[in-house]
Amino acid sequence: MTYKFDCDNAITTIQRFITGQLAASGLSGYVIGLSGGIDSAVSCALAVRAVGSEKVLAVLMPYRSSSESSRSDARALVEQLGIEHRTVDISPMIDAYFPEITEPVRLRAGNKMARERMSILFDIAAETGRLVLGTGNRTEICLGYTTLYGDSACSINPIGELYKSEVREIARKIGVPESIITKAPTADLWEGQTDEGEIGVTYEQIDRILRMLVDEGVTSLKQLEGAGLSTVDASKVVSLLNRNAFKRKLPEIAPLGKRPVPERIHLDS
Amino acid sequence: MTYKFDCDNAITTIQRFITGQLAASGLSGYVIGLSGGIDSAVSCALAVRAVGSEKVLAVLMPYRSSSESSRSDARALVEQLGIEHRTVDISPMIDAYFPEITEPVRLRAGNKMARERMSILFDIAAETGRLVLGTGNRTEICLGYTTLYGDSACSINPIGELYKSEVREIARKIGVPESIITKAPTADLWEGQTDEGEIGVTYEQIDRILRMLVDEGVTSLKQLEGAGLSTVDASKVVSLLNRNAFKRKLPEIAPLGKRPVPERIHLDS
Repeated sequence: MTYKFDCDNAITTIQRFITGQLAASGLSGYVIGLSGGIDSAVSCALAVRAVGSEKVLAVLMPYRSSSESSRSDARALVEQLGIEHRTVDISPMIDAYFPEITEPVRLRAGNKMARERMSILFDIAAETGRLVLGTGNRTEICLGYTTLYGDSACSINPIGELYKSEVREIARKIGVPESIITKAPTADLWEGQTDEGEIGVTYEQIDRILRMLVDEGVTSLKQLEGAGLSTVDASKVVSLLNRNAFKRKLPEIAPLGKRPVPERIHLDS
Repeated sequence: MTYKFDCDNAITTIQRFITGQLAASGLSGYVIGLSGGIDSAVSCALAVRAVGSEKVLAVLMPYRSSSESSRSDARALVEQLGIEHRTVDISPMIDAYFPEITEPVRLRAGNKMARERMSILFDIAAETGRLVLGTGNRTEICLGYTTLYGDSACSINPIGELYKSEVREIARKIGVPESIITKAPTADLWEGQTDEGEIGVTYEQIDRILRMLVDEGVTSLKQLEGAGLSTVDASKVVSLLNRNAFKRKLPEIAPLGKRPVPERIHLDS
């Protein structure tokens, strides 16, 4: 049976998930990193709808070269949602490791920044007794277009089953500011960088390809072509999905034949 | 059937795993963080035996207050194994975030350091085209006595099925320096800190308890008591195991009924 995306239904399910996970944790709320992009905006807005604005703490973590529009979009969202926020400039921590970010190290520096932000979010979570709310969508999980132990790292992820195009649909429905919805998605690693420019395929095409490959289980290039999709693009998507499989799993452990560690143990008297 | 640990067999299996994972990755070697402790020493020594000293790069990442004996033990191991090494002082990156580490933030600072080291290891791995070799043992995985996305984060983990006491047995067998084997295990977070002091149970007792609970599936306090184990200690162990279950799993994703993302996709023409 083909999966049919129902926007209202997804919103309800995700909000229930956000509420339920917080209750189960016994902690006091969520902390979330706002980049100014649509994914963190939607995660954050859904959390506010689910648990209330007083239980969501936004953290803006710009680097020196982060674009001004990213920062102002993040601030606008904070104001719209009426939530508490902090700003932590990551430049000093990054400078201490990369005194200069030249072209050959810019990708490595981008990954270092993503991991710095993760470590700050978990630190603030520990300080304030909260969970870290994730912001990775299904498109980037499928492609592995994330930094391992960086932006993909979180306590729970509310939007991990939403393709990028579905994140956009929800963003419109729940009133995320239009400038956040319409701007070109970017990891903001350098001036002018865009996800689609780097991957070489538009998100619209990627999502159409992933729906057939992953949700419908189609693996025939002929069938993809018959549906009007580019086989070149499909091959690019599959190559990323396969190459980054390691980002979707826990690290492999050398197997000595012991039992897996159970999730929980209940002692009897 | 009860699992019986066979030291020689474990060494062979782990070395084969280390060799196989490197071959499968197509990368050029391993990078490993050496703390001066027994876990990283054993992982590193097994990697050198498996793939050769020229394919293992050790990284020493002391913080200002790291003990001198940790540093010299790490250096002694590097010399004994004849491997390349780098030293990256993490103090500047940590100072930029925690200008002063007072008692109320020392645990948070310890976690920040563990994540800083992770991010440096993955950066050097990217720079040099290597995998990050993990150093987490089964005892700490069971207890969750690790920093999530910190010391537990790696590409592959060779010793994740070895209890602490089994790590010691292997260390003796493969000639890890005696000073590393006999010193009290510590995360080196502050002067005088030891794992056993913090947990309140010795590793010897913890491992005996875990073997019964996890490997043999015993959940009866009476049976544990009958085997001469303290029910107070067993309750402590179970409480840690249960409380830290989240560290052994990928983050929960809000479920919308979509198929799981397959590990790999093979396109047919």
